[in-house]
Amino acid sequence: MKRTLGTCYYPEHWPRAIWEDDARRMAGAGLTWVRIGEFAWSRLEPEPGRYAFDWLDEAIAVLGAAGLRVVLGTPTATPPRWMIDRHPDMLAVDSDGRPRKFGSRRHYCFSHEGYKAECAKIVTQLAARYGQNPHVAAWQTDNEYGCHDTTISYSDAARRAFRGWLRARYPGPSNDGDIRALNDAWGNVFWSMEYGDFDDIDLPNLTVTEPNPSHVLDFRRFASDQVVAFNRLQTEIIRAHSSTPIAHNYMGRVTDFDHYKVGADLDIASWDSYPLGFLEDRVPATVAQQRLYARQGDPDFQAFHHDLYRAVGRGRLWVMEQQPGPVNWAPYNPAPLPGMVRLWSWEAFAHGAEAVCYFRWRQAPMAQEQMHAGLLRPDSVEAQGLVEARQVAAELAEAPEVSHTRAPVALIFDYDAEWAWAIQPHGAGLSYFELVFDTYRALRRAGHSVDILPPDSDALSEYKLIAAPGLMHMPEALKTALAASGAVLLLGPRSAARDGSMRIPVPLPPALPGLDATVSHVESLRPDTPVALESGGTIRSYREILETDAEVLETTTEGEAVVVAQGHLIYVAGWLDPDAMRRLIHVASDRAGLACLDLHESVRCRDAGAHRFWFNYGTEAHDVEGRTLPPLSVTREARD
Amino acid sequence: MKRTLGTCYYPEHWPRAIWEDDARRMAGAGLTWVRIGEFAWSRLEPEPGRYAFDWLDEAIAVLGAAGLRVVLGTPTATPPRWMIDRHPDMLAVDSDGRPRKFGSRRHYCFSHEGYKAECAKIVTQLAARYGQNPHVAAWQTDNEYGCHDTTISYSDAARRAFRGWLRARYPGPSNDGDIRALNDAWGNVFWSMEYGDFDDIDLPNLTVTEPNPSHVLDFRRFASDQVVAFNRLQTEIIRAHSSTPIAHNYMGRVTDFDHYKVGADLDIASWDSYPLGFLEDRVPATVAQQRLYARQGDPDFQAFHHDLYRAVGRGRLWVMEQQPGPVNWAPYNPAPLPGMVRLWSWEAFAHGAEAVCYFRWRQAPMAQEQMHAGLLRPDSVEAQGLVEARQVAAELAEAPEVSHTRAPVALIFDYDAEWAWAIQPHGAGLSYFELVFDTYRALRRAGHSVDILPPDSDALSEYKLIAAPGLMHMPEALKTALAASGAVLLLGPRSAARDGSMRIPVPLPPALPGLDATVSHVESLRPDTPVALESGGTIRSYREILETDAEVLETTTEGEAVVVAQGHLIYVAGWLDPDAMRRLIHVASDRAGLACLDLHESVRCRDAGAHRFWFNYGTEAHDVEGRTLPPLSVTREARD
Amino acid sequence: MKRTLGTCYYPEHWPRAIWEDDARRMAGAGLTWVRIGEFAWSRLEPEPGRYAFDWLDEAIAVLGAAGLRVVLGTPTATPPRWMIDRHPDMLAVDSDGRPRKFGSRRHYCFSHEGYKAECAKIVTQLAARYGQNPHVAAWQTDNEYGCHDTTISYSDAARRAFRGWLRARYPGPSNDGDIRALNDAWGNVFWSMEYGDFDDIDLPNLTVTEPNPSHVLDFRRFASDQVVAFNRLQTEIIRAHSSTPIAHNYMGRVTDFDHYKVGADLDIASWDSYPLGFLEDRVPATVAQQRLYARQGDPDFQAFHHDLYRAVGRGRLWVMEQQPGPVNWAPYNPAPLPGMVRLWSWEAFAHGAEAVCYFRWRQAPMAQEQMHAGLLRPDSVEAQGLVEARQVAAELAEAPEVSHTRAPVALIFDYDAEWAWAIQPHGAGLSYFELVFDTYRALRRAGHSVDILPPDSDALSEYKLIAAPGLMHMPEALKTALAASGAVLLLGPRSAARDGSMRIPVPLPPALPGLDATVSHVESLRPDTPVALESGGTIRSYREILETDAEVLETTTEGEAVVVAQGHLIYVAGWLDPDAMRRLIHVASDRAGLACLDLHESVRCRDAGAHRFWFNYGTEAHDVEGRTLPPLSVTREARD
Ligand SMILES: [Zn+2]
Ligand SMILES: [Zn+2]
Ligand SMILES: [Zn+2]
Repeated sequence: MKRTLGTCYYPEHWPRAIWEDDARRMAGAGLTWVRIGEFAWSRLEPEPGRYAFDWLDEAIAVLGAAGLRVVLGTPTATPPRWMIDRHPDMLAVDSDGRPRKFGSRRHYCFSHEGYKAECAKIVTQLAARYGQNPHVAAWQTDNEYGCHDTTISYSDAARRAFRGWLRARYPGPSNDGDIRALNDAWGNVFWSMEYGDFDDIDLPNLTVTEPNPSHVLDFRRFASDQVVAFNRLQTEIIRAHSSTPIAHNYMGRVTDFDHYKVGADLDIASWDSYPLGFLEDRVPATVAQQRLYARQGDPDFQAFHHDLYRAVGRGRLWVMEQQPGPVNWAPYNPAPLPGMVRLWSWEAFAHGAEAVCYFRWRQAPMAQEQMHAGLLRPDSVEAQGLVEARQVAAELAEAPEVSHTRAPVALIFDYDAEWAWAIQPHGAGLSYFELVFDTYRALRRAGHSVDILPPDSDALSEYKLIAAPGLMHMPEALKTALAASGAVLLLGPRSAARDGSMRIPVPLPPALPGLDATVSHVESLRPDTPVALESGGTIRSYREILETDAEVLETTTEGEAVVVAQGHLIYVAGWLDPDAMRRLIHVASDRAGLACLDLHESVRCRDAGAHRFWFNYGTEAHDVEGRTLPPLSVTREARD
Repeated sequence: MKRTLGTCYYPEHWPRAIWEDDARRMAGAGLTWVRIGEFAWSRLEPEPGRYAFDWLDEAIAVLGAAGLRVVLGTPTATPPRWMIDRHPDMLAVDSDGRPRKFGSRRHYCFSHEGYKAECAKIVTQLAARYGQNPHVAAWQTDNEYGCHDTTISYSDAARRAFRGWLRARYPGPSNDGDIRALNDAWGNVFWSMEYGDFDDIDLPNLTVTEPNPSHVLDFRRFASDQVVAFNRLQTEIIRAHSSTPIAHNYMGRVTDFDHYKVGADLDIASWDSYPLGFLEDRVPATVAQQRLYARQGDPDFQAFHHDLYRAVGRGRLWVMEQQPGPVNWAPYNPAPLPGMVRLWSWEAFAHGAEAVCYFRWRQAPMAQEQMHAGLLRPDSVEAQGLVEARQVAAELAEAPEVSHTRAPVALIFDYDAEWAWAIQPHGAGLSYFELVFDTYRALRRAGHSVDILPPDSDALSEYKLIAAPGLMHMPEALKTALAASGAVLLLGPRSAARDGSMRIPVPLPPALPGLDATVSHVESLRPDTPVALESGGTIRSYREILETDAEVLETTTEGEAVVVAQGHLIYVAGWLDPDAMRRLIHVASDRAGLACLDLHESVRCRDAGAHRFWFNYGTEAHDVEGRTLPPLSVTREARD
Repeated sequence: MKRTLGTCYYPEHWPRAIWEDDARRMAGAGLTWVRIGEFAWSRLEPEPGRYAFDWLDEAIAVLGAAGLRVVLGTPTATPPRWMIDRHPDMLAVDSDGRPRKFGSRRHYCFSHEGYKAECAKIVTQLAARYGQNPHVAAWQTDNEYGCHDTTISYSDAARRAFRGWLRARYPGPSNDGDIRALNDAWGNVFWSMEYGDFDDIDLPNLTVTEPNPSHVLDFRRFASDQVVAFNRLQTEIIRAHSSTPIAHNYMGRVTDFDHYKVGADLDIASWDSYPLGFLEDRVPATVAQQRLYARQGDPDFQAFHHDLYRAVGRGRLWVMEQQPGPVNWAPYNPAPLPGMVRLWSWEAFAHGAEAVCYFRWRQAPMAQEQMHAGLLRPDSVEAQGLVEARQVAAELAEAPEVSHTRAPVALIFDYDAEWAWAIQPHGAGLSYFELVFDTYRALRRAGHSVDILPPDSDALSEYKLIAAPGLMHMPEALKTALAASGAVLLLGPRSAARDGSMRIPVPLPPALPGLDATVSHVESLRPDTPVALESGGTIRSYREILETDAEVLETTTEGEAVVVAQGHLIYVAGWLDPDAMRRLIHVASDRAGLACLDLHESVRCRDAGAHRFWFNYGTEAHDVEGRTLPPLSVTREARD
């Protein structure tokens, strides 16, 4: 695989006269890819059924003539204003019951059949016209599904669709829905919540106190499935006209839909990486970390998503939008330190990315993103991002081709578990994502390269160590596959704590084959009342009390079992702080026969093919294993 | 009175096959009472007008056969889903104007006549069928009125009912409403808010800036009266069929309706005591106190409610739901320390409870409260709560019968004052409840046993010391009764600061007979600008400037009068901090001829009949008056 | 000009029997003015079309007979209840889409034509009846436009009016609206937001993510223009019947409409000055400052508004409502320290006020403002405010007449810039008002008297130093006028950063004639990551990176240019902290030939005519320039 660069371009924003020059400069900077079209619906179909493709034909021709390869986006994230007249009820509805109006983007409900038909029409037009175009080398469906909290809608369309989804989930003998089965699954006898018919079921917002968690979990699964279906509608149309690979550009820490399921219908997983913006608005970081890395981004957040989306893409990963300078949308929007754009680009490649595209070519002088940096300033002068992109292009030109390599350590990330935790955190602010991210960070501090896996991965036996914290529901197949993997397993807390309908199973959790341990009860803790461990560090936030005869690896200062082991299985009965988590990873690595490092908080490494990459996110040099890493640097070495 | 224990049970949640065993285990653990039925409407009336009582007949028979006494709840807190089809407008409406939907509980507006008729029907069915059942030994109406902020509704039904309530309050000569009287009472000439007709009057939400406080206070009184009427509807029906006592289970710190008025129609006041949950979400405690007592609960909060609801029950008090382990609903849900379930139970008895029932028998594996501990785990294994309940049962068996005793000190709690302060706190966050609770805490730290009284108590002359802080409206009868009581009186701040229509009276407050003191003006203080007192401590948050010729007991460091006394009356012109409050209680006790202690912050005592109970909420032993109280302990002693 | 005092009075709130006595006491205290009528609509027009002026005739006669001069307010801020029946859709709608109901005040949408017609009728009645009344010496239109966030409404009426406003703004060749011009101006091609017709355009609330800033800015300008039109409707009617001067009473830090434009239709600018309330809820002050000045008010906030509204009034300034004691509406409502009412009064006069009126004569015992102090207590006893008012009256009687004098320093305040910053702060919480206020505070600490100017002032050449920070849009005329003024100019940050349609101009900002400096890019900073300056202090919150060949006056510790100068122009590329701002003001003053002081944080001075006033807001005495200022004092001296 030859690694490449690209950018995002909006010919419709600029005078026709400068397209050739833009294309020439892109190619001259060493860029390969140019993504276009994904917000241009009002220019492609200015009125219902009247199409205007001439300008797009010409733009593709100009870009292609310069040697660029086009990624063509479907414009369905930005339906034009006339669409609202045709389908006034297509808008999503927020949890307060208010329609989310036209005037920005993503103003549609995934469940609206009329809007989906409109999408099918425009995608058909595009696929038919450009499916065989030699310059169109990839497709992108829509843009950033789920961004701006758009997965979940409380619209009438969503209510109707949810009822249908539930009939299919609880089909009954005559296959048209068995409401008793639903009542049983949800435990609706509690508080007289029983339904007489599927049409009695409402969406779980605006209830007097919390709704039934089983109701909410099914609603969250439904909402995710609606995204999958929406995306599949487009991929099926495109594939009918084109054999070019199809991608979608996911966002960072958007977990409201199951990316693995969307990814199953795509060829490539790409994502939009904004390290500085994310550090301010979604990274699980302390204030001290936010201050320390304000101009560099979190040392693990990008890597985590590269590893996650590489799994979503079944090996094929792109960064479709790479932050090139200050952005406009975070609470604070500092400029990256010099070198960081290059570092982020190489980090993506080290984690298996095939391409990194910078967003956007030229800073727009108008509308919502006018303060979002581009590779060019609004006056077309080169910005810092382009300087670094050109450097990366030169370095790539000299680098060999690479192929994917499996990491020795796996970490399971399960969207269903994320929803279950969100519905029932038990303690304020507890989040599955953060639990997994804490584990990922500890694995990386120990020097491990990590593959993230879906819970239904068929590759479990390829790993020496598998971490799978917080899997609230573990189907029997997963329990069996893990046990059969031969890997050292790091499970808990909350493993198998619920059945598939969000009920506590009996026998009590975790009920893992081969582990003599039962969670007698659980508790959540005030942040100011952690429980001290005998060997140092604490359990914080969430804790389980075990009845166990297994080997006890860690106890509280009161002698209660916290980490227990039996065979290949290690069970962690609580949320460990970084000290205790570090110790746990070292113990588990030892048992798995994996050597560990103890990296500085700013230093990370990643093995890729024949090379090891070292990253220093800090503003000072650090010595590690006999080498010095300059500040804000990436270092590529041949592996031992 | 023989003190007893009980539990809450949901036969409809469990297989018929285990009912007998459950009943046997309850009785075997020493429990007397079992509450059932209060959430079972969908099983009692599965379709409108179709009743299904067989299962309940059987459940009562099984429980009764085991020797248990049944408390039968009316199921009106959880109307079934079909009810919403029959009465779509029965849902309460929140202050933002949004209906509060089906899908949890308490989804009804107290003012909806159609729903009230449905309640009358189901209660009639239950009362007729079980009114003479020998095992049904008590009734519970509905469940936790006001919980989840459900007292106040901004629905159309509430608007209509409010207008009628106002016509009755301002009847006029022809008794159909005198709108001028209302305009005068509310001072509507201010800002041209005058009404031409009662039908012009809206509910006081969503106004541009704050609504008229007189308008809001009448609305709050109306809302309270609607709860009273709703409850009375049920008690009248039950009493027509049954002579068994009737209770309702109140909540902690729900003050949106007048519990004394609801209680007047009932035989027993019971409440639902969740010490750990309440400490996290409603106790007026500092963060340091929350941390210190995270696993014990606040040392005064339960006691306060026992004393309050004993007054509401006119001497008859139960705990209908006692926390037995971690709960599910607080921001953080730790497990109680061992011994606390026993301590809480004995504390209730020390404050006059007849019965303590644990919620619930077995932890439910499904729905909203699946993480709420029971006496049994979901797998029917005994949990810590049952261990301690059994111990209490054994101790009770050996304890003598008791009768009620009056305390020497009284504290008046007035729901109307709570609403008046909430409407017009003058300083951010100032709360009548917290002022009274601060006073209660200080009285308890001084070793006093306290009776809480309603403002219209006819027993004022039974006490040596009566504290009545913050009574914003004092009817003349109350002023007279207090003066005639012969007790040392502790009044202020804000005593008699408003007339019955929420206006400032002239002559200016407090205008107390026998006290030469006038509040010239008042001010509220930033938390960081308390006013220092000459003898130590501060006034904080709220302060009055007095014109007075009375004896001055406390002054600011600037020499301004803060506490003044004349005859039996002590007036406190501000909110004292704990230091100053401690001094005040000692001075007042001296004047009343009552000896004081100076208890450790974790230690409390309570006299009941011939015994004094000592409680240590701390995790270390404490010496007090020549005895040592072990950690987390209750000690019962014969009184001197 | 003879300076005078007054008060606000509500005869309709008090028995007819005490009017004469009230009038006598007002006059006896030395008051000249009495404002009446502005909330009395329900008494002036009790039913639609039925007027009742007798009482007002009588009140004016009584007040006039006592020698008082009446300011008569139009009652349009408080439409009576019957108005809502006539115009149910006249209520403003909040950004969540909820009508803002009757029950307090300001319950109208400025765009509702039906309500405006009703206003025209009542104002016509008043103007016709009292336009020639010898006691009516001034008019006030409405009350506190914009208070309680009432400028902006998302009603249907506003939507219709906004579309019409846009057609006029983008008229096109045939003058009925050119939608392409709007699409171009707003850059609607971005995200397919293009409109086909003006009737497609909605108000910019409830969009999925942020709306187009150009859309919002036009909406904010429209909303401001609606206030201007609403006010003009009244002034035109009054002027047709009366030659008496007309005022409006503005509020502190209400910036949602352009006060200069409203003021252009009025004769006098007055405002309502509540120093203690404002310090708690709107002054840009640190918590330490809030604590320190809790009973005095901020030392610059009142002065700023005096200077601002003196510009709005084109030299004619009143304080229509002066805080006389504790108020009711702030989070905390302490009493002013003795002497502060006098200090505030004199401060107003030092800044050019013609009259200071205290709000209100007697504290109302009822309704929303019952806890707002008056000059009298509710029992008619004199309050502290009246003691001090009488002292000021005596001092004024002995003081000579004064005339306006121009200050040597000007500061431009531009409402359009305030909206642009609010729409696009780039960093959380960044505010144009606060930037200007920081600059004002620094100028005052340097001892300067300041004139605030509108951006279209024709007096720029009268000043030695002009500060104009943060003018996001600078029309060419302003750039030219500033350059031609001959004054030392203090510009930046964000000067000329946007064109008139909220787009980034090319060539890049600031593109100031005579300044060789270009903002290459900008960044916003976390509060905990300021950038240190070489000479001390920091840039905080917002920063620009310059390409410049100008003289560099300040650099970061990394050597980047922060303050540059060329000719008379000084450009500041960021938000300076107080240390750096102090240094900047001294440098600029030196260049302008102005001497500077270095005043204590509690001390200020102001030159007015032949006098210099010294103010000490502190509770300790301070020595300054050879004199001692007593605590909480005002000192008047002849100027050198
Ligand atoms: Zn994006
Ligand atoms: Zn309960
Ligand atoms: Zn006012």
